[in-house]
Amino acid sequence: MLQSAAQLSGMEAPDVWVPDNEDATAPSMRDEGVENMIDVISENGADFPGEIHPRVVWHRESPTTRYQGFQQILKLADPENGAVDHLDGFVIPEVGDIDDWKKADEFLTIVENEHDLEEGSLAMSVIVESGEAELALGDLREEMGKPSNNLERLFMLVDGEVDYTKSMRAITPTGELPPWPELRHNTSRGASAAGLIAVDGPYDDIRDVEGYHERMTDNQAKGMLGIWSLTPGQVVEANKSPLPPKNGSWQLEVNDRTIELEEEDGRHVYGGDEVELEETGDDQYTLRVGGDELELDGEELSQELLDMTSYIPSLDDIVDSMEEFEAAKEAGKGAIAMERSGTLVIDGVEVEVSNDRMWDEATYQAAQTPITLFQDVYENRPDQHEDLEELYGEDLVERAMVVG
Amino acid sequence: MLQSAAQLSGMEAPDVWVPDNEDATAPSMRDEGVENMIDVISENGADFPGEIHPRVVWHRESPTTRYQGFQQILKLADPENGAVDHLDGFVIPEVGDIDDWKKADEFLTIVENEHDLEEGSLAMSVIVESGEAELALGDLREEMGKPSNNLERLFMLVDGEVDYTKSMRAITPTGELPPWPELRHNTSRGASAAGLIAVDGPYDDIRDVEGYHERMTDNQAKGMLGIWSLTPGQVVEANKSPLPPKNGSWQLEVNDRTIELEEEDGRHVYGGDEVELEETGDDQYTLRVGGDELELDGEELSQELLDMTSYIPSLDDIVDSMEEFEAAKEAGKGAIAMERSGTLVIDGVEVEVSNDRMWDEATYQAAQTPITLFQDVYENRPDQHEDLEELYGEDLVERAMVVG
Amino acid sequence: MLQSAAQLSGMEAPDVWVPDNEDATAPSMRDEGVENMIDVISENGADFPGEIHPRVVWHRESPTTRYQGFQQILKLADPENGAVDHLDGFVIPEVGDIDDWKKADEFLTIVENEHDLEEGSLAMSVIVESGEAELALGDLREEMGKPSNNLERLFMLVDGEVDYTKSMRAITPTGELPPWPELRHNTSRGASAAGLIAVDGPYDDIRDVEGYHERMTDNQAKGMLGIWSLTPGQVVEANKSPLPPKNGSWQLEVNDRTIELEEEDGRHVYGGDEVELEETGDDQYTLRVGGDELELDGEELSQELLDMTSYIPSLDDIVDSMEEFEAAKEAGKGAIAMERSGTLVIDGVEVEVSNDRMWDEATYQAAQTPITLFQDVYENRPDQHEDLEELYGEDLVERAMVVG
Repeated sequence: MLQSAAQLSGMEAPDVWVPDNEDATAPSMRDEGVENMIDVISENGADFPGEIHPRVVWHRESPTTRYQGFQQILKLADPENGAVDHLDGFVIPEVGDIDDWKKADEFLTIVENEHDLEEGSLAMSVIVESGEAELALGDLREEMGKPSNNLERLFMLVDGEVDYTKSMRAITPTGELPPWPELRHNTSRGASAAGLIAVDGPYDDIRDVEGYHERMTDNQAKGMLGIWSLTPGQVVEANKSPLPPKNGSWQLEVNDRTIELEEEDGRHVYGGDEVELEETGDDQYTLRVGGDELELDGEELSQELLDMTSYIPSLDDIVDSMEEFEAAKEAGKGAIAMERSGTLVIDGVEVEVSNDRMWDEATYQAAQTPITLFQDVYENRPDQHEDLEELYGEDLVERAMVVG
Repeated sequence: MLQSAAQLSGMEAPDVWVPDNEDATAPSMRDEGVENMIDVISENGADFPGEIHPRVVWHRESPTTRYQGFQQILKLADPENGAVDHLDGFVIPEVGDIDDWKKADEFLTIVENEHDLEEGSLAMSVIVESGEAELALGDLREEMGKPSNNLERLFMLVDGEVDYTKSMRAITPTGELPPWPELRHNTSRGASAAGLIAVDGPYDDIRDVEGYHERMTDNQAKGMLGIWSLTPGQVVEANKSPLPPKNGSWQLEVNDRTIELEEEDGRHVYGGDEVELEETGDDQYTLRVGGDELELDGEELSQELLDMTSYIPSLDDIVDSMEEFEAAKEAGKGAIAMERSGTLVIDGVEVEVSNDRMWDEATYQAAQTPITLFQDVYENRPDQHEDLEELYGEDLVERAMVVG
Repeated sequence: MLQSAAQLSGMEAPDVWVPDNEDATAPSMRDEGVENMIDVISENGADFPGEIHPRVVWHRESPTTRYQGFQQILKLADPENGAVDHLDGFVIPEVGDIDDWKKADEFLTIVENEHDLEEGSLAMSVIVESGEAELALGDLREEMGKPSNNLERLFMLVDGEVDYTKSMRAITPTGELPPWPELRHNTSRGASAAGLIAVDGPYDDIRDVEGYHERMTDNQAKGMLGIWSLTPGQVVEANKSPLPPKNGSWQLEVNDRTIELEEEDGRHVYGGDEVELEETGDDQYTLRVGGDELELDGEELSQELLDMTSYIPSLDDIVDSMEEFEAAKEAGKGAIAMERSGTLVIDGVEVEVSNDRMWDEATYQAAQTPITLFQDVYENRPDQHEDLEELYGEDLVERAMVVG
């Protein structure tokens, strides 16, 4: 598995590869695990397109485990073994209080010193899987500034929901993991305050692609931009999910549910039966939603549907709007109206909807987050250029790289 | 805009007016902005019915911006300029850690000293729009007690979701703001622990009155009683929203959705099709909800519907109940049953529902929150007396002012 | 009420009994309240099957109330009064900052010293009903380690939502309590980090058994395993709720709602109308869900339904799986596939669904939480053995006690 992972590239390769010497390796095989990693990374590490951060063993409640983790790092980072040139850092699971994080940090400092590596050159990522580690997220920003540690080496904060659930003694009837929205918020906030990257843990149900996407959408709304992937298939989904779509689409909000409309020849068609629309006369319509029945003329209908719909912009839409706003700003304007319009079809009746949204500096900057992410990935992952150009076209990719 | 805002009164005037010299003013116009504020406030400030707290510029990451903010405050608060008599404090946006809050506090202390104003007389409100500011909310209560600062001047804690979203690098498909429930909880908790007022940020979609109301209801359930208003129309909604309604109403919970029943001649009518009711014989009914079909006699039906309904009490109902409980308490009783009954109509079939709720000291005190807010607003806003009396009647307003 | 509570046993007796001298006792009757407690506990305490932790008065903002609380504890714990042998600790309501918790802790230390009780022998539980107490939950773990206090005596962290709502000045239209998910998360996390037990507050609507169950399910997914009970009926529900069910069941997820299927002769029948299934030809089916219509062959249908369903395992299922995994581990295997299959019936059409779930060490340990709880209760509550054996059968109870 190490061999095949090391050879992934493009959309199948993750931004960060975490060869695992903890849960994925039987306890008795961990010395061999370290050697396998050294073999594979020293041979293939130079060609791997992302960063490499092996996970070693660690436990806040076991000095034995922590000492084993130290030994694993010492060996993996030994220049004589040839892997350290391709290693970017280490992932430390099962951390506790901030003082426990500092123990791992200190071991990395010692390893760096022993092997004549630059102090702070090995990044450290942690897996938050206990209440005490979650509490430590609130202290990070302050602790990282202290001269007595090298916590500036911190890189990713990963939530580990399986062990977190165990540590919180949580129970669900089906055995599914609880959603833990507060944990994810606190991790994202800690990452934002300390300039780190927040990453969600594994999504167990590997076959459930839709569920994986919903989780990523939910995470992104929390500022948690990364997610663990367990299979090459999940890597592809995780690489593509934060990218704006190729084509814009409309969605309808009915009875607190969101339904994506299907595009047919540039029109956006609703195929459900929770909304009914009938043309009852000249510019007269009857709209039924849930228990309500509304008699509307064309303009009222268009307004009513506009209130029920929202638009998911494509990458092209976002780049367009940003370019337009940049031009307006250069011409001395602080705010402009962006129009968004479309043709919806419900029960065969076509309705044009159109709205103006005010764009000011704040809207512009908020729209920039996905673009900045796009640019960041593009710059760091030349192996994905072809995929991105195939997806969006060369022109759009170029424009997306210069906007903002 | 400053001119017209300064002349608002009654339900159109906010409790706190925040003339803005940050995002609403182009960077090159901010000196002029300060002068305009001084002109308008010195001329109209005495007559403005609410408090006045201008927003100046500030940024946790820019000493230049912070120094500009200091200069703006210094000028706005200069007694020679005539505005300071009508100024209650300042709003500081984009704060960071608690130490950053202290920098703004210190500038206010210096301004007060320079202008011979009483130390602590200028209130300070902050806009929470970063992870580090959110974390500072947990330290407020402790920090405010320290003798080395004047943070007791703190007044409002405002959430600024647009810039918070940017700072958290959050993304939503439609570009809408994430709901950030944890941020709002933490702001409300910080305000409660430190004796301050929690205020939600702007609601962008100005046309969406229903959405604005839903947001306020959600905020109020979190203890966040205020909300930013961008237009006089939003001010009216924000002034009225926390007030108990003129008339009580019943709502039905079906399939996790809440549907308000319409009152017709004192009866409460369900017009949807998710619940069906039929009288099938003498005191025999069939009730269909979702996939379930229940055969019930009249009493069972009444009980079943009671479980599905809840009642939203009017101001009159709340005052009645509180008066009744106060009388009972005076007579030596610690708890009394309050009856609530009504006639529901489903598919033309009338059903009487009635329930007793136990009121004790805790229920009484919990009911008091909206009444205390009512009394607070009434005392501080004589310009709204006429509106309130028109809405509720003079009698009820008088009773509401003495209860509790 | 004290008398009858003291004589409860089996499923009707709580794990912790909290005789109340605060809200349930009129202020003028609290001296008498202490005496009644002493009488009842000294007489019946030895036979009560659970622990006994009286609630005394306390308030973070009233030294008078705190001194009354101290006097109540002093009296209740006086060996001459005969109750202290059966007392396990005290419940302190309305605490504030951690320093306020320390005042109560110090009083307990003084009482222990005065009455020659072992220092730390009286447990202390608190009711979190203010923002400042919620903030203190984040400091507990660190503060408990300090030599200047005896906070190691902490036992339960209870959320008191009625007074918390008042203290946060929260308002809901119907007067219902807000759900406060963040408070419950923070309490559960504080308990997990400090080795304590998180308990939810009273559920007011005593008649609403279904609502009480939903609340417990929600709490358990947050790691909050206990809940306040106000009546013997609620005690029974609270005792049974965290136990895995006697029989496994299937549930269907439709339009974001979860519907439990009814078992009939080993088949699991869907009786609603939001999903429709028709056999349209040889191995050809039409499945309608919401607005979607799918044409599927038998295998696709089985897969589609599997994606829509989930299984709630019985105690027997959990014990089976754990035993199987333990045997595999002994045989040197780190992961095995567990099959789960069933016959679903929709519109009369039978469909077999079956899935394999991978079990590894983490799955095994996560499954252990309800079993550990079961074993914990079984060991501490001999009075419930008969009920448990009647519910599950003697064999299964025995197997559940040795697994893990």
